[in-house]
Amino acid sequence: MNATRNRQFRLAARPVGLPKASDWSVTEEPVREPGDGEFVVRIEYVSLDPAMRGWMNEGKSYVPPVGIGEVMRAYSAGEVVASNHPTFPVGSRVAGVFGVQQYVVSDGKGARVVDTSLAPLPTYLSVLGMTGMTAYFGLFDVGEAKAGDTVVVSGAAGAVGMVVGQLAKIHGCRVVGIAGGAEKCRYLVDELGFDAAIDYKADDVRAMLRQHCPKGIDVYFDNVGGEILDIALAQLAMHARVVICGAISQYNATEGVKGPANYLSLLVNRARMQGMVVFDYAARYGDAAREMGTWLAQGRLKSREDIVEGFDTFPDALLKLFRGENTGKLLLKIG
Amino acid sequence: MNATRNRQFRLAARPVGLPKASDWSVTEEPVREPGDGEFVVRIEYVSLDPAMRGWMNEGKSYVPPVGIGEVMRAYSAGEVVASNHPTFPVGSRVAGVFGVQQYVVSDGKGARVVDTSLAPLPTYLSVLGMTGMTAYFGLFDVGEAKAGDTVVVSGAAGAVGMVVGQLAKIHGCRVVGIAGGAEKCRYLVDELGFDAAIDYKADDVRAMLRQHCPKGIDVYFDNVGGEILDIALAQLAMHARVVICGAISQYNATEGVKGPANYLSLLVNRARMQGMVVFDYAARYGDAAREMGTWLAQGRLKSREDIVEGFDTFPDALLKLFRGENTGKLLLKIG
Repeated sequence: MNATRNRQFRLAARPVGLPKASDWSVTEEPVREPGDGEFVVRIEYVSLDPAMRGWMNEGKSYVPPVGIGEVMRAYSAGEVVASNHPTFPVGSRVAGVFGVQQYVVSDGKGARVVDTSLAPLPTYLSVLGMTGMTAYFGLFDVGEAKAGDTVVVSGAAGAVGMVVGQLAKIHGCRVVGIAGGAEKCRYLVDELGFDAAIDYKADDVRAMLRQHCPKGIDVYFDNVGGEILDIALAQLAMHARVVICGAISQYNATEGVKGPANYLSLLVNRARMQGMVVFDYAARYGDAAREMGTWLAQGRLKSREDIVEGFDTFPDALLKLFRGENTGKLLLKIG
Repeated sequence: MNATRNRQFRLAARPVGLPKASDWSVTEEPVREPGDGEFVVRIEYVSLDPAMRGWMNEGKSYVPPVGIGEVMRAYSAGEVVASNHPTFPVGSRVAGVFGVQQYVVSDGKGARVVDTSLAPLPTYLSVLGMTGMTAYFGLFDVGEAKAGDTVVVSGAAGAVGMVVGQLAKIHGCRVVGIAGGAEKCRYLVDELGFDAAIDYKADDVRAMLRQHCPKGIDVYFDNVGGEILDIALAQLAMHARVVICGAISQYNATEGVKGPANYLSLLVNRARMQGMVVFDYAARYGDAAREMGTWLAQGRLKSREDIVEGFDTFPDALLKLFRGENTGKLLLKIG
């Protein structure tokens, strides 16, 4: 492998606000030979996730921060091109936390072989990857969505939001998505079967929520935080569940996070707000993947990816998330 | 009864900020004869609760607002002085939502006879009343406190907080109270057996919480909101439960409620924040009262009342709550 060069994006500085070019360094090094129990993956797709912004910050969180000088952490997927590991033979397709680079030498920890005869490789970073798992366990376990519930999801045209809404529809819920832009909203309703979609850039979110959720919100799945979280809190139904999955509107805030001023709605409505991290459900990923795989095969669940090409476009491609430019799962196709 | 005069505090205007004298009107009218199934109570004690401030506001909440011109809503307790109701004979002592007035004609709805041979009348507005019920169900049902948990309670020297801390100690928890002033803190530790108390007016709450909760906070029972809620959120343990019982620091805010900026700690720690209203547990009040009554009799649980005398002092007495001047349950003794 020594003749093969591996390009990598490393964290050069902790960003203040939106990550900028100088927060990254690009390095190139030979790919080393795999040792005993190791294998080499040629990465084809890198998953771009809002959570990556959090991993770039100093300080305690649910995973350690990416260190300065380290390869940027990312879920990715590719093909095994050299192997001394029986579970990951040459030619198999694999997904794992492989980082923003062209090649990785892995010992298999956190990696898994995926079957591209059942679904294309990008789907394993989307509906059948952490994205889908987050939606599934967030909606059903944390949100305790029941048939007949009114489910509202923000970031609805994003990777997780899109799956949340579809799963809620399959489950017999009334589903209202909040997204940015008419085209995204049209897609949610016309293509994915949401009952309604609210364009937060153009609509009066408060008024539209009231119209589309006449009995209040039973489950609010929040990916965005900020003003929209506050508006949703004010319209909770009794015993509502608020799932805190993310807060993309706040990740680049330079003046502190905006707390939800309407949190006392939790008291008035005997409601709860609960945070989640998908890793806690690892023991049940298989069950969820089987169930969602069946729905995918039946055409009841759609996986949509927004694919940007070219390894070097990574810094710009990542910003699409924070500019709300992606529809569905944002992936970087490399090599 | 017609010769008996009944003085009443009525809501004259919706307060902006702290209630002021002109927000009240005092009226006097004859006490009418009780009809069939009615009885007359001469009120002896009126419960003064932070929640009363919320009832004075316009708008949707967990109970309708007190109307302008209506007698101010309050829990109170007294003696039956005339009766056409078999359950509430003359001479019995009763508690109920009787309002801020000297007499009430009741049909018994929401009222109950109390046994003053078991505990003095004020205790039925305190540990054996809504105060105790709120602490009990908030801590055990919403907070799911378990032996060995670290429980932090704010407003710890207030009516509910004081019971929460004592119940948590009885249950085998480590208990840290947050209160205003050295004397309150001394009382919590020396008299009630709290493991530690933090004086938010003098101490560095953040540093002291870190010191007294080295493994983080498992249950945070919040009565105050604002800055202290934010500090506590930042120190949650994994799977922590935050009980939103009240937010006394925010009830008189004229520039909007301060939302908890650290709410994303719920995500990092897979924690939940849940609101409660005690009425939901009405079917189990009897069980809780029996259990707490036993602890009272055993001396393991103390009921402390802060009693202000004189009906006409009501407007000023109520403000003691918002100035943090009471220790324990604030009651108005009248007549």
